[in-house]
Amino acid sequence: MAWNSRVDHVAPFRVMHLLEMAQTREAAGHDVIHLEVGEPDFVTPEPIIAAGQQALASGLTRYTPAAGIPALREAIAGHYAEHFNATVDPARILVTPGASGALMLASQLLVESGSRVLMADPNYPCNRHFMALAGAEIDAISVGRESGWQLDAALVAQHWRKDTSLAMLASPSNPTGHTLSAPQLSAVLDAVAEREGEVIVDEIYQGLNYDDAPLSANSLSANAFVVNSFSKYFGMTGWRLGWLVAPEHAVEPLTRLAQNMFLAAATPSQHAALAAFTPECRGILEQRRETLKERRQVLLEGLAGLGLAPDIPPQGAFYLWLDISRYSRDSQAFCERLLQEENVAITPGIDFAVRGGEHHVRIAFTNDVARLEEAVARIARFVGRL
Amino acid sequence: MAWNSRVDHVAPFRVMHLLEMAQTREAAGHDVIHLEVGEPDFVTPEPIIAAGQQALASGLTRYTPAAGIPALREAIAGHYAEHFNATVDPARILVTPGASGALMLASQLLVESGSRVLMADPNYPCNRHFMALAGAEIDAISVGRESGWQLDAALVAQHWRKDTSLAMLASPSNPTGHTLSAPQLSAVLDAVAEREGEVIVDEIYQGLNYDDAPLSANSLSANAFVVNSFSKYFGMTGWRLGWLVAPEHAVEPLTRLAQNMFLAAATPSQHAALAAFTPECRGILEQRRETLKERRQVLLEGLAGLGLAPDIPPQGAFYLWLDISRYSRDSQAFCERLLQEENVAITPGIDFAVRGGEHHVRIAFTNDVARLEEAVARIARFVGRL
Repeated sequence: MAWNSRVDHVAPFRVMHLLEMAQTREAAGHDVIHLEVGEPDFVTPEPIIAAGQQALASGLTRYTPAAGIPALREAIAGHYAEHFNATVDPARILVTPGASGALMLASQLLVESGSRVLMADPNYPCNRHFMALAGAEIDAISVGRESGWQLDAALVAQHWRKDTSLAMLASPSNPTGHTLSAPQLSAVLDAVAEREGEVIVDEIYQGLNYDDAPLSANSLSANAFVVNSFSKYFGMTGWRLGWLVAPEHAVEPLTRLAQNMFLAAATPSQHAALAAFTPECRGILEQRRETLKERRQVLLEGLAGLGLAPDIPPQGAFYLWLDISRYSRDSQAFCERLLQEENVAITPGIDFAVRGGEHHVRIAFTNDVARLEEAVARIARFVGRL
Repeated sequence: MAWNSRVDHVAPFRVMHLLEMAQTREAAGHDVIHLEVGEPDFVTPEPIIAAGQQALASGLTRYTPAAGIPALREAIAGHYAEHFNATVDPARILVTPGASGALMLASQLLVESGSRVLMADPNYPCNRHFMALAGAEIDAISVGRESGWQLDAALVAQHWRKDTSLAMLASPSNPTGHTLSAPQLSAVLDAVAEREGEVIVDEIYQGLNYDDAPLSANSLSANAFVVNSFSKYFGMTGWRLGWLVAPEHAVEPLTRLAQNMFLAAATPSQHAALAAFTPECRGILEQRRETLKERRQVLLEGLAGLGLAPDIPPQGAFYLWLDISRYSRDSQAFCERLLQEENVAITPGIDFAVRGGEHHVRIAFTNDVARLEEAVARIARFVGRL
């Protein structure tokens, strides 16, 4: 049986193999330190859980409108007004089943067979895969220190082709944790607009910013497709809830797609998320951000001694993207050996980078400081033997 | 701005316009009887709600594996064993965000640009739209009394072309409520297999059967793609939870697609659904089925007097598909006038049928007997004036 040829463009997450190895070792009694998964180790904040339970107790279990309950769309608009000085009409906000739903909508709307999409390399593989499933060709542009590990206006100008229709940005980025500054982002938006292209900005890690205040493309433009999520900053991964801010004229076709592709996001999740914007919840989330910032520092300092610090510290998200070329040119083998010999699970770069993945790894700081210190000690022991 | 041309194939639900009209009338104080929506009027059964609250209390809010929690996949397999005499390996079951997620996976795997898909006309429009988004051409085959309002083996034989790769069945069907019998379903599966095609069977309304015991394609074949849902029989619409049973060799690429397209279904929903298979919940659900059966009878008898009974009573789901040609050849206008003059909201057939929709309507029996009797009286008054 030959499947749809598009399916071949959707590579398996190679980290899954590593995850299975890690679970097998754990089941065999080894003390594995998990730094491989892109999920906060915090449970959902209590006010959100309580709101979810209340929604269930009230029997809020039926379908919502395709774009989400009005109260949540308004609360998201309020969040932009309060924290980003951005005026976003709630009518431009579509609540989606995870950021996945938002990426699905935007990719199905914006690209088709023969479209070309510009993206930084490395990037989050699902972002590539959504575009590939919609039929697009990806131009993954190698980025590094000179552009702050981001697709900047100069790179857009250099790589934009006649058949390019879309640029996809991510800030903070997975896997690098790097952000676009306001002038950088503004310049990219302008560069794409000049070329009559569209822009998707992945802001899934927004709020997990450690150096500067978080930034949204919504503060700069009403023409970008902005993807966000309740998963990371708000700690709601398993609730599968995200949103898409779209240009006004895209709302009707996007709503039509949403009606057909997923009907609506889960109702209890939507009602629970209303509590995510309360001051009480904000306090918990900002405390967690401080915790992540402290962990970042511990990892950066510990790894610097091994020549493994990134050239620019990540300003956001909860990842380090590390060049391991002084130790290895085979990140998969490096990660497997590290797991087998020292029980530290990290992610090989090959999942994220079209080029250079074989000498990069991603480390998630989704574990507490004591465990991170122990992980650094184990990594030190491991690379000492290489 | 020109969107992806595929988006044009996704027609808006025209019932939405009617729904807005109904809401406007209701807000203005009119007593509207809602028979237009494809959602049971029952809230989720209490044991499922309690299990959802318990899951939240236990902090079960993180990602699950892409194919769902093992306990739920096993429970679904147990359901097939207990009620369908079908042995389904849990490894062949993927839990999805609604049946929508299952249809998305199956369509993305099975069809591509240039594929042709056979489907009964009328059908559920999302089923067509998923195929269109994946690039397929739909051959919607007019069905009627002679094939039991289903795509049968003879129609498959007659309409299968060289470039047809997939047949899509639905039993019980939305909008007709008609089912395929075991010999009919078996013959279709054989007819498609002989042609080396694939079959998707939409069993979303399974369990809502009023005459014979429900049937699953899983009892007949391990090669069909079987789509199901917790929405209708189990009363969990807003939880967005469904599943796909796939042939063994399709599980790996489907899991890869699931990882990328939606990561996983909502975690609280998955844990809540475990309670759907308990004897206590089964008792509630079977009681609801009896209630729906009684409603069906009330509608059938009431409408027969107006010459509006279907030629075959629906054996399942909760819809009547009615030929209104003795009164109108414009179902949209018919429904709008019925709403304006008598405050009864039903659905014009044009959403469902490529051909014949203009002289059909769909009536959902998602309201209690007293309201259905009142609706029949209002419809009688209305058609008496035509």
